[in-house]
Amino acid sequence: MENLANQRKNYKPTLPNTLKDLQSITLEKGEHPSHVDSNVAELIPNTKSQPFMHITEKKSDVSNALKIGVVLSGGQAAGGHNVITGIYDAIKKINPNSELIGFLNGPSGIINSEYKELTSDFIDLYRNQGGFDMIGAGRTKIETLEQFENSAKTVTKLNLDGIVIIGGDDSNTNAALLAEYFEKENIKTKVVGVPKTIDGDLKNEHIEVSFGFDTATKTYSDIIGNIARDALSAGKYYFFIKMMGRSASHVTLECALQTHPNYTIIAEEVAANKKTLQSIADEMCDMIIKRAEKGKNHGVILIPEGTIEFIPEFKALISELNDLLSTSKHAEKIANTENREERINLVTQQLSKESAQCYQTLPYEIKLQMIMDRDPHGNVQVSKIETERLFIELVKSQLKEKSSKYKGKFSAQPLFCGYEGRSCLPSNFDSQYCYSLGHVAALLINSGVTGYMASVQNLTLPVKDWTVAGIPISAMMTMEKRKGKLKPVIEKALVDLNGKPFQKFVESRESWKFNDEYIYPGPIQFFGPESITDLTSITLDCEKSHSVSKC
Amino acid sequence: MENLANQRKNYKPTLPNTLKDLQSITLEKGEHPSHVDSNVAELIPNTKSQPFMHITEKKSDVSNALKIGVVLSGGQAAGGHNVITGIYDAIKKINPNSELIGFLNGPSGIINSEYKELTSDFIDLYRNQGGFDMIGAGRTKIETLEQFENSAKTVTKLNLDGIVIIGGDDSNTNAALLAEYFEKENIKTKVVGVPKTIDGDLKNEHIEVSFGFDTATKTYSDIIGNIARDALSAGKYYFFIKMMGRSASHVTLECALQTHPNYTIIAEEVAANKKTLQSIADEMCDMIIKRAEKGKNHGVILIPEGTIEFIPEFKALISELNDLLSTSKHAEKIANTENREERINLVTQQLSKESAQCYQTLPYEIKLQMIMDRDPHGNVQVSKIETERLFIELVKSQLKEKSSKYKGKFSAQPLFCGYEGRSCLPSNFDSQYCYSLGHVAALLINSGVTGYMASVQNLTLPVKDWTVAGIPISAMMTMEKRKGKLKPVIEKALVDLNGKPFQKFVESRESWKFNDEYIYPGPIQFFGPESITDLTSITLDCEKSHSVSKC
Repeated sequence: MENLANQRKNYKPTLPNTLKDLQSITLEKGEHPSHVDSNVAELIPNTKSQPFMHITEKKSDVSNALKIGVVLSGGQAAGGHNVITGIYDAIKKINPNSELIGFLNGPSGIINSEYKELTSDFIDLYRNQGGFDMIGAGRTKIETLEQFENSAKTVTKLNLDGIVIIGGDDSNTNAALLAEYFEKENIKTKVVGVPKTIDGDLKNEHIEVSFGFDTATKTYSDIIGNIARDALSAGKYYFFIKMMGRSASHVTLECALQTHPNYTIIAEEVAANKKTLQSIADEMCDMIIKRAEKGKNHGVILIPEGTIEFIPEFKALISELNDLLSTSKHAEKIANTENREERINLVTQQLSKESAQCYQTLPYEIKLQMIMDRDPHGNVQVSKIETERLFIELVKSQLKEKSSKYKGKFSAQPLFCGYEGRSCLPSNFDSQYCYSLGHVAALLINSGVTGYMASVQNLTLPVKDWTVAGIPISAMMTMEKRKGKLKPVIEKALVDLNGKPFQKFVESRESWKFNDEYIYPGPIQFFGPESITDLTSITLDCEKSHSVSKC
Repeated sequence: MENLANQRKNYKPTLPNTLKDLQSITLEKGEHPSHVDSNVAELIPNTKSQPFMHITEKKSDVSNALKIGVVLSGGQAAGGHNVITGIYDAIKKINPNSELIGFLNGPSGIINSEYKELTSDFIDLYRNQGGFDMIGAGRTKIETLEQFENSAKTVTKLNLDGIVIIGGDDSNTNAALLAEYFEKENIKTKVVGVPKTIDGDLKNEHIEVSFGFDTATKTYSDIIGNIARDALSAGKYYFFIKMMGRSASHVTLECALQTHPNYTIIAEEVAANKKTLQSIADEMCDMIIKRAEKGKNHGVILIPEGTIEFIPEFKALISELNDLLSTSKHAEKIANTENREERINLVTQQLSKESAQCYQTLPYEIKLQMIMDRDPHGNVQVSKIETERLFIELVKSQLKEKSSKYKGKFSAQPLFCGYEGRSCLPSNFDSQYCYSLGHVAALLINSGVTGYMASVQNLTLPVKDWTVAGIPISAMMTMEKRKGKLKPVIEKALVDLNGKPFQKFVESRESWKFNDEYIYPGPIQFFGPESITDLTSITLDCEKSHSVSKC
C-alpha cells in the first residue's frame, strides 16, 4: 500500500449533501426545456418531450434491484473509473442486489455483446485511478440499423434497466438516438449519458464542465510551469508547446491562465480576426524581437492543436490538396513522381494562386508531410501536422528576413502536451465530480427516464453544496450539416471571446509577453490543505464569477 | 499563500542529526585517498595531496563571519536553490555577519564580476523552488589563463573566503583547477564543488547520487506512467519515448524500474553487445509482432538520448559525414546541390561501403537532417537527431518487410521526456539532500580547505541518519584523451551492467515485454505519508541493498 496509486484507492470522494442518503431521495420531473430544435424533435418523436429532472424526497420505500450496463466511449479522460465506481456504489445503496455490467472496449462491446460483470473486488482496484483500462474504451459508433438492432439484442438478453454511456458530444448524441430507438422498440433499457472530454468543449447552460478537463489542464500546467522555469533559468530557448484539445482552445486558455506564458494562440480569436499563418508568426516575431532588445532570448508559446483548422487560407489549401491528390487528373502523375522536390513543385503548379502562395510559405518538412502522409481516403492528415514545428520554422525564416531589426539568438524547442494528460490519476475535483456524476446517472435510470445526461452543478462551491439534475439530451441538440447531410449534434462549445475567461486572459497577456510573470503550479497534490488539493479550474471559476476582476 | 509553490516556501527540510548544531561542529582532516592519478597530481601540485574531511566536535568558540560566493554551472537540476539556501542558512548559523554573493548566469559571472548580494528576503522567495532563476545559470567554462586571472580579480576584490560551484563533472573538474590556481597564486578564496546533474552520471564511491536525478526521474516516471495507462486504455498506440540524460542511461533505467515499460534500451548494453540500429529495431519488431498475436497493438518503449552514440556503425557514419561535409574535396559540390534528394545521393556515393549501408537504412527525414543541420564547426548535430522518430521509422519499415508474420496495426507516437524534468519543484528528497549539501559546502569553506566536493552519504537511511564528508576532487579525477589532448576529467559513471539496478531490470524485462505490468507512480507528492513523500530512487535503493532481490 505504499505507492501513491494504491493509496488513492482508499480515498473517499466527498458527495454533495443532496446525494448523501440515496435511500430517501429520487429524481422527479420538473419544468420542460424552453426549446427543442424542431428537426431534432422530428428525429426523436418518442423522446422529444422531456422535462428536467430534479432531486426530491422519495415517497415509496420500495427500491428494486437495478441491472445497469456502462460503457466508455472515445478518448480517455481522468475520472472515468470514478463514474463507474459512483454508479456501482449508488446502485448498491439503492438496492444491494443491483448489478453492474461493463461493456468492453467501447460501444462495440454493446453491439457485439462483449461485457464483464463488475464485482466489488474488481471495482475496488480502480477507485480513483486514471485510465479507462477497467473495461477499455473505443471509438466505434452505434450508427447503422444493424448496430442498433444488435445493441437492442444485447441489452434485452442482459435484461438491463439502463445503460450509462460515458462520452463526449458525439457519444451523448448517440446516447439520445439509442434512447429513442429503445423507446420506439419498446425495450425497457434506459439510456443515460455522462459528459466526458478533456477538451472542455462539451459544456452549456446545463453542463458546467466535462470531466477530465480539470486533471488534464492541471497536468499540462505543471509541465508548462516547469518548462517556463527552465526557459527562464537557462535564458536560451523558446518553447513552442502544442496543446491537445481538438478544435476548441479551452485547454490552452485554461493552461495560459494557470501559467502566464509569453504568447498564446486562441484559435477562436484567429478565426474571428481572419488571421493568416504569416500574421500569427509575425506577432510572435515582434515579441521575440522586443524581448531580445531586453536581453531575453527565451520564452514560452502555447499553440492549440486546433489552430490551423481555424485559419481560412489553410483550410482552403487543405481542401484543394485533398482534391488534387485524390480525384484530380494530376493525381496519378503526382503520385508517380518519386523525387520529393519535384513532387512538391508539381503540386504547387496545380494549386490556385492563393493556395500556392500559402503552400509556398510552409517549411519543407510540412510541405512534404502534407502531400506524402495521407489517410485511407487520400486526405491530408491535418491532425498529424505538427503545428508547433510549423510555427518554429515560420518564425525562424521571418526572423532571418528581419535580421536588420533582430539581434537576438533564436533557438527553439517543440513540445506537445497531449496523451500524458488523459489517463493520469484524477485530481480531487475530477474524482469527486465523477463520483457524483455516477450517482446521478444511477438515479436517472432508477427514476425510469431515458435520453438524459447526468449533471452536477455549482461546481465552484464546496462539494457538499453541489446540486444535481438530469438534463434531456434533446435540449442540447441541434442539426448541423456534416459532409452535406443534416446530422443531429450537440454543438461543441468554442471559447467565447466575450466570456470572462477569455477577457481575463486579454487583460493580462500584454504584460505576460514581456515581463516574465510565469506561474509554476507544480504537480497535482492529493494530500495537504484543501485550498491546494480541491482547487478547480480558473475557467470554471471565471465563468461563475460576477466579474472578471473577481476571478 | 494558497498555491503549491508558495506553500513550499514554508517547507523546512530536515537536516541530518550531525548537522543540527553548526556552532559545535567543524570538519577535520582524516585519511588520505588511496590513490591520486599521477598525471592529475602533476597538474595540481599545490592541491594534489588532500585528505577526506569528516565532522568532528569544534574545539574553539570563535567563528568568524564568512563571505562566500556561489555559482550555478550548466543545465538546470531541481534543488539548486536549496543548495544556496543551505549555504546561506549554514553561514548565518556559523556567524550572523556572514555574507553570500550570487554570481549571475553561471561562471561568466565570476569572470566578468557580475554578482548580487543574496539577502534574507530574496533568499526566502526561492526556498524549495525549482529552476535556477535566483541567480541564473550558464555554460561558460573558466579555462583560459585570462579567465583564471579575471576570476582571481573578482574573488580578491570581493574578499571572498570561498566559492561554491554547483555543477556536473566538468564544472567540478573546473572547480579543482580553479582551487589549484588560487592556491598557487596565494589567493585566500577556497573552492568547493557540489554534485549536480539530472543525468545521474556524476557518482562514485564517494558521491552516491547527484542532485536533481531524483526529481527528474520522478517527474518523467509520472509522465511515462500516464502514457502507459493511456496506451493500455486505448490499445492502439506504441509510444516511443526519448529520455533526457546525455550519454549514460541512468535516467532511463531508473524510469524503467519505476514504470515497467514494455521495452527499454540501455545504451551501455547496446555498446557492450555491439548492437546495430537494425538489430535493436528488430528486437522491437519481434516484441510488437508477438504482442499483436495476443491482440495487443499498444506499448511503451524507452530510448535514452545517448543511444546512437553507443552504436558503433552510427559513430563511424557520423565521423565520416563530418569529414565529408566539412573538409573533403566533395564538400563544396554537396553544399551546392540544391535538390535534397540529389544531395542525399551524392553523400551516399562518397561514403565507405559500411557507412553508406548504415546511412541508407535511415529514414529520409533523418538522412536529410544529418546533412542539412550542422553546427558552426560543420559537424552533424548528433543531439538533434530525434532518436524516437528514427526508431519509429525503422520499426515501420521492418514491419512492412515482415508483413507475412505481422497481422497487427502499428501506430506510433513520439515523445520526449526532457526539459520539464529539470526545473520542477524539487522532491522532498532533493530538497533535503541539497539543503544538506549546502551546509557541507559552507562547513568545508569554513574549515579552510580547497578543491573539495561536498558529500552527503547513507542517503537511503532516514534523513536524520545521513552522514556527511568532504571529498578531495583530485581523488575522483583522471586524465582522458579529448580531441587528441590529455585532459583532466571526473569520469562519467555509466550504467554498470553488473550492478544491481541493471540486474534488477534484466530479471523483469522479459515479463514486462508481453504482460502489461505497468506501474503508475503519479505526480510527486509533498504532503502525506512519508513513505510517499520521502521515497528515494530505486537505483539508489538497489545500489545500497545487499542483494537484487531486496531492492
